[in-house]
Amino acid sequence: MIGNYLEFNVFFDIIGTIAFAISGAILGCKKKMDILGVTVLGLVTALGGGFVRDLVLGINPPKMFQNSTNAIISTVFSILVFMFFYFRKNFQSRQVISFMNEFMIISDTIGLASFTITGMATALSLGLDKRFLLIFVGSITGVGGGMIRDVLAGTIPFIFKEQIYAGACILGSIVFLLTRSFLGDQVSMIICFFTVLIFRLLAVKRNWNLPRISD
Amino acid sequence: MIGNYLEFNVFFDIIGTIAFAISGAILGCKKKMDILGVTVLGLVTALGGGFVRDLVLGINPPKMFQNSTNAIISTVFSILVFMFFYFRKNFQSRQVISFMNEFMIISDTIGLASFTITGMATALSLGLDKRFLLIFVGSITGVGGGMIRDVLAGTIPFIFKEQIYAGACILGSIVFLLTRSFLGDQVSMIICFFTVLIFRLLAVKRNWNLPRISD
Amino acid sequence: MIGNYLEFNVFFDIIGTIAFAISGAILGCKKKMDILGVTVLGLVTALGGGFVRDLVLGINPPKMFQNSTNAIISTVFSILVFMFFYFRKNFQSRQVISFMNEFMIISDTIGLASFTITGMATALSLGLDKRFLLIFVGSITGVGGGMIRDVLAGTIPFIFKEQIYAGACILGSIVFLLTRSFLGDQVSMIICFFTVLIFRLLAVKRNWNLPRISD
Repeated sequence: MIGNYLEFNVFFDIIGTIAFAISGAILGCKKKMDILGVTVLGLVTALGGGFVRDLVLGINPPKMFQNSTNAIISTVFSILVFMFFYFRKNFQSRQVISFMNEFMIISDTIGLASFTITGMATALSLGLDKRFLLIFVGSITGVGGGMIRDVLAGTIPFIFKEQIYAGACILGSIVFLLTRSFLGDQVSMIICFFTVLIFRLLAVKRNWNLPRISD
Repeated sequence: MIGNYLEFNVFFDIIGTIAFAISGAILGCKKKMDILGVTVLGLVTALGGGFVRDLVLGINPPKMFQNSTNAIISTVFSILVFMFFYFRKNFQSRQVISFMNEFMIISDTIGLASFTITGMATALSLGLDKRFLLIFVGSITGVGGGMIRDVLAGTIPFIFKEQIYAGACILGSIVFLLTRSFLGDQVSMIICFFTVLIFRLLAVKRNWNLPRISD
Repeated sequence: MIGNYLEFNVFFDIIGTIAFAISGAILGCKKKMDILGVTVLGLVTALGGGFVRDLVLGINPPKMFQNSTNAIISTVFSILVFMFFYFRKNFQSRQVISFMNEFMIISDTIGLASFTITGMATALSLGLDKRFLLIFVGSITGVGGGMIRDVLAGTIPFIFKEQIYAGACILGSIVFLLTRSFLGDQVSMIICFFTVLIFRLLAVKRNWNLPRISD
């Protein structure tokens, strides 16, 4: 059972790692960082959520240090992103920026969705099966890397300025909790993944808003 | 003995949680966040200090995940704060803002005072009874949540711009250490609570300043 | 062997602590913080890297709480820095600022170099001898305190705006890994120290740049 979770985990973990590394690297490029800064921001975004999750769950040293696959993947993809934008600088800059923004939102959302799952799967693989803990750990793993990315790059975190960001994680976790008893954990996790993904992308596209205090 | 600390703890822990959730939620409202952003900022402020404390003391998983009472309380109070300001938007905005500022300073100070105590009480309940550790853990638990709140909301933390902020925690912890041997731990903690509270509120009201380098 | 590392450690640890405390305190003075804010920023910069390292390596409670020597040293040096600038305010302010900047870069680099070593030495003293882990832990210990300092003071961290910052740590760690098998750990660590130091100071002086995306 534990083995199952972990194997299943690996796939979404890699997807999330790549997606977040890309989103971190894109933000670094937008902020005109150099190639190393871009790589560090990619690494921090990709590994930050899992790092916070492992601190919370008491996994020492955190998984990122037990197995450097994710660190290597993040480094490679961050450098690829940097090179992509570096050699395209002759493009219309407005066009490149709008492409960057869209691509960053998509990769950020994929990271959000897959890390929500790996967060919950990691807790379950340790035998921690409490509802609130699962929602918490799923959401923290999902939003943690992006929050660290935004704080380090000097922007207000996505979670506070975007519509329906952490909301998508929480909704996905709840969908997982509601469906797992009759669909099994693995199917429910896939449903959770697509719930987070579709819900946030729709929210961005349709400009859904939660109530906020106006002037 | 340990049981005593923990029971005693619970009361101040809840007070601090409510006060910090309110201060986080108010800052979220001031920054025009939506209802979920306001709730997340409330949660982070309320649970952040204890989270850092538990990391420091090696409590795994941190207490916030063992017992979700505080998370629920924070969520409820953050939503209440949001609704309060949401339905009052027809008020003179200058009046509302000045009310927000005052209310935030008061709730922040109550959180500061109660979390200074719970920080020290948690260390003592683990049998860690060293002077420097107690001052450190008390102060970190007190200022941690507010620092995370301010960093996430994109403001310079209170601790650096306010007069006498961490100073109040440190003073309170020292008062506790000086009085506990002849008044007992519990009475000294209550004295510590009021020391932090009164000292910081007086400092804000009278505009006390520590020396700083002028231009 | 473990004892050797730790003893050897102590020397560079104190050098790094003093240097980072000074760099934090100088930034606090530049930002017009009061004496307590300056001290807190000095403390956080000096102890932050080791704190993150200890969380990563699972040392509970972190070393800074087991032994308060470093906390005391940081406090003393932060106050000395504050007093130095406080009583020199009659100087030409442009002259003082340029002196501050230079002195901060030098002390920051010394901290970077010595904490890269202590990071690796701490991992080795726990029997953790994997290449990637050593580079990671060395670099995180080196850059961690400065990153926390910059985030708290509301500036984009050095690591993202400076040329060759984390790069110097990574280079130093690699030099250590390459030379240790034939020079022994202690000599290699000293070589690592000077590699980080000289490489970053040269990079700042000669204004070396890594590729970055221009407009």
